[in-house]
Amino acid sequence: MSGILEAKPKVGYFYKGEQSGPELNEALSISVDKVKSVPVVIDEETTVYDAAVTMFLEDVGTIFVVKDNLLKGVISRKDLLKATLTGDSGATIPVSVVMTRLAKIVYCYKNDRFIEAVRKIVEYDVDCLPIVVEEGENELRVIGRISKTSISRYILELAKPNKE
Amino acid sequence: MSGILEAKPKVGYFYKGEQSGPELNEALSISVDKVKSVPVVIDEETTVYDAAVTMFLEDVGTIFVVKDNLLKGVISRKDLLKATLTGDSGATIPVSVVMTRLAKIVYCYKNDRFIEAVRKIVEYDVDCLPIVVEEGENELRVIGRISKTSISRYILELAKPNKE
Repeated sequence: MSGILEAKPKVGYFYKGEQSGPELNEALSISVDKVKSVPVVIDEETTVYDAAVTMFLEDVGTIFVVKDNLLKGVISRKDLLKATLTGDSGATIPVSVVMTRLAKIVYCYKNDRFIEAVRKIVEYDVDCLPIVVEEGENELRVIGRISKTSISRYILELAKPNKE
Repeated sequence: MSGILEAKPKVGYFYKGEQSGPELNEALSISVDKVKSVPVVIDEETTVYDAAVTMFLEDVGTIFVVKDNLLKGVISRKDLLKATLTGDSGATIPVSVVMTRLAKIVYCYKNDRFIEAVRKIVEYDVDCLPIVVEEGENELRVIGRISKTSISRYILELAKPNKE
């Protein structure tokens, strides 16, 4: 353990120390694969109502719409709120009507860097990106997700109190 | 400019350099006041429907409910989706019925550190914290907000390409 760490009188959250931990640059350059969460997926014939129920049960803000495991669309809490605000609870409308379609989805690959995913989330103003692998021609399979929640969790992780 | 920076061949996002920028510890310890956004507030008699419309117009995920400028509650996209999912679009229900009430609100003060706000957001599983000042007895005035979006933006800012 370094002298620098021992000399620090502060309590609470601080970085592990210049000599033992990665630098900020390094920390923000890890692959998204290392911070990814399990994606929540539904079929495109699922109703808006059932998609909302799934969102509450799984406690996520974004669900991916798939067919034969291939990505067809993304549905967010915002999309569902817009759909239910009309007075119809969405019991009959399929999510495919209100989802963001494949052509407009922002995504990333598992080897993309964490900070690149952060940049996409901020610049495209989305809460979550699917992490995909290409499958055949113009088809994408979802293998994970990275969200604003994942970002916040990872930053907190970097700042955890030194346990040594 | 340091030799370390000049020697770096990478392009894209990287930290400004060990010698010219703040360290991670320092970067995560700035006060929330420096990353805060303007809070969006509504009156407690506003309907669920109008709150949702305000949320879309202002493009935020959380709205603070106030009376005479004092914090009374917090309403999130999740709260509104739950309220509209019943089939009623919330045209008559006031937000005060579905909001999180003062006693249960997680908040922070303007001098709190950024990383403390991140910790509260992650641990209490909320998207956004009001930044408050105490006013009289048990009253809080909202002066800003910090959200998962603010966190993502700040992290991206730290990693901006070196412009020198």
